[in-house]
Amino acid sequence: MKRTTSRPEDAHQAALLRLLRDGGRSRAELADVVDLSRSKLNVELDRLVELGLAEQDGLAASRGGRRSSRVRLSPMTRFAGIDIGATSIDVAVTNGELEVLGHLSEECDIREGPAVVLDQALNLVGRLRQDGVFTELNGVGIGLPGPVSFAEGVPVVPPIMPGWDRYPVRETISQELGCLAMVDNDVNIMALGELHAGLARHVEDFLLVKIGTGIGCGIVVDGKIYRGVSGSAGDIGHIRVDDLGPVCACGNSGCLEAYFGGAALAREAAAVARSGGSPYLAERLAATGVVTAQDVAAAAAQGDAGAIGLIRDGGRRVGQVLASLVSFFNPGLVIIGGGVARLGHILLAEIRSVVYRRSLPLATGNLPIVLSEMGETAGVIGAVRLISDHVYSA
Amino acid sequence: MKRTTSRPEDAHQAALLRLLRDGGRSRAELADVVDLSRSKLNVELDRLVELGLAEQDGLAASRGGRRSSRVRLSPMTRFAGIDIGATSIDVAVTNGELEVLGHLSEECDIREGPAVVLDQALNLVGRLRQDGVFTELNGVGIGLPGPVSFAEGVPVVPPIMPGWDRYPVRETISQELGCLAMVDNDVNIMALGELHAGLARHVEDFLLVKIGTGIGCGIVVDGKIYRGVSGSAGDIGHIRVDDLGPVCACGNSGCLEAYFGGAALAREAAAVARSGGSPYLAERLAATGVVTAQDVAAAAAQGDAGAIGLIRDGGRRVGQVLASLVSFFNPGLVIIGGGVARLGHILLAEIRSVVYRRSLPLATGNLPIVLSEMGETAGVIGAVRLISDHVYSA
Repeated sequence: MKRTTSRPEDAHQAALLRLLRDGGRSRAELADVVDLSRSKLNVELDRLVELGLAEQDGLAASRGGRRSSRVRLSPMTRFAGIDIGATSIDVAVTNGELEVLGHLSEECDIREGPAVVLDQALNLVGRLRQDGVFTELNGVGIGLPGPVSFAEGVPVVPPIMPGWDRYPVRETISQELGCLAMVDNDVNIMALGELHAGLARHVEDFLLVKIGTGIGCGIVVDGKIYRGVSGSAGDIGHIRVDDLGPVCACGNSGCLEAYFGGAALAREAAAVARSGGSPYLAERLAATGVVTAQDVAAAAAQGDAGAIGLIRDGGRRVGQVLASLVSFFNPGLVIIGGGVARLGHILLAEIRSVVYRRSLPLATGNLPIVLSEMGETAGVIGAVRLISDHVYSA
Repeated sequence: MKRTTSRPEDAHQAALLRLLRDGGRSRAELADVVDLSRSKLNVELDRLVELGLAEQDGLAASRGGRRSSRVRLSPMTRFAGIDIGATSIDVAVTNGELEVLGHLSEECDIREGPAVVLDQALNLVGRLRQDGVFTELNGVGIGLPGPVSFAEGVPVVPPIMPGWDRYPVRETISQELGCLAMVDNDVNIMALGELHAGLARHVEDFLLVKIGTGIGCGIVVDGKIYRGVSGSAGDIGHIRVDDLGPVCACGNSGCLEAYFGGAALAREAAAVARSGGSPYLAERLAATGVVTAQDVAAAAAQGDAGAIGLIRDGGRRVGQVLASLVSFFNPGLVIIGGGVARLGHILLAEIRSVVYRRSLPLATGNLPIVLSEMGETAGVIGAVRLISDHVYSA
């Protein structure tokens, strides 16, 4: 029986699968873009069909001569992406072209530990299986909200993830789902999502700043995630923005994350609400006992000065750090994503204003700074891109 | 007649030349490391000999069978490196193995403009020619103390180089010396020097911080210089370290370079001398009318508290910026080089203390921070490495 979960046998087959991931095409079109003789190409394509990884798909329109037969990835191909955040899990299943066939989202608490949280994630995958979205997976990509040893597939001393240190996440998920698995941190997979289907689709060198519960940065060099020598590259949440700033969970003071990011913003918003600086936030605090980043966004949308001030302060701090990184890294694009990024254009305007003023003109001359347009899907798309890059390699 | 200034005809020949750059070897040894059949290898090597790029070099010791013939780069091969700083020019000529055969150094003033300064550099090259160090050059690499458009070989709006903006440096030098030329900024070529022959010889991802008249950072990713999208990556001298700091030449305030680097240090040292904080520096100021970074180093070596305080302050500022960059980039090594780096271990200790305290443990766990051991040669060696990489490519 054909198994769609085979692997390519050589680099040529892998390259062809990655091309087909962008959509089925005729053998003639493939011949135009790969460095293979037409006969060798046909041998490799036939072998991919035999392996169950690709299939014939009728005849293409004539380009003047004989009509060329079309090839596409097996329609049975399925990848899963699991994006675990501090407070939510997103799970999506895609076809081989990484088009989302099913997407479920649920609140979670990362502090409940790996057994509980991974179980919750696996249940979501199970629901998509029950819904008939897939029967068998070719691979699963997983994002975690903390530092990950990419080679080992385990989190490493993750600050906000008690109980997760060196937990065998890749192995657990791989065994439970019976397929290849890869693990990376949530920011890197978000950057991969933007590279695959977002605003960075045609950009080689860019930064993705995720402002959620924590703050991190995905670094893409030459179209590939740069992870640094111990996998912690992009961990910008603990860069100091003020010597005399508040004490951070990491033990230092004045870290970016201690000023902004979901937790700090909620704390600051509650303080503004109590001090009478924002009628809107005071009302939310009285009604629910807490104020969230969403409340701040809603308040700002209504013109609440206290909320707008909070967003501006946060944007300025993010801008300060980004200005340094832009001078250092000279990226072609900066994308702001993550939950807090939903604060929108007030935040963006403040970040832009600081970066454009503080960074070198040569580095900002052609530098767009934009908000992600992918919403919740950047992480899961990045996760399936991560695993499909691996499955479609040889 | 054989010309040693030919270029390789294909990627195999180029790869063989790069291997021979590390020293001559036997055909058997080359066969062990290249992905070529023995007969194809011999064809390519014979062709390199015909082109005058390599030559036979006797027989190697037997490895058990027939003795294999040795091949080395043509001993006529010559590369020149020109390292132009704000206040000095270094010129070196090497053989194909990038061993220095002649090295001259002279003070200069970059503000005299390209006509004067390039003439001075060409005169130094001319002296090495007269001394018989070379007759013909295979290529010349040039470093400039400002932003360079690498593709065009011209400086771009360089702040401390009046008259140099878009001056055709590559073309001028190439025409005058009758060989291929490449231009990069001084910090990138210094990083290449460390990669080729310094402490970064076996490191893929590292940072080289040059503290001279200005402050810049060479970024090496995967064994290659990372230049950013507009070539300004690593320009860290204008990262803000203090909101209320001194006004910088760039128009902003509190830039790293406005605190440290040769010019700022000389200014601060003069202030300390005048205020009675350093008898040693006061004596120097009275004797010569100025105090330099060298004076500060000499004073510190004698235990002068004022001078040591200056170095510590500067080291702390550099450390602050580096701590952010280490968290962001997670390098495998940080090398401190450039003139001010001669302040030595007091400076290094302060930088280390700030970085190790402020950066994430995951990023600093295995991170050496060291002083360059290459002295004046890092730049010129990097410059010849740059051009030989280009000449030995196809």
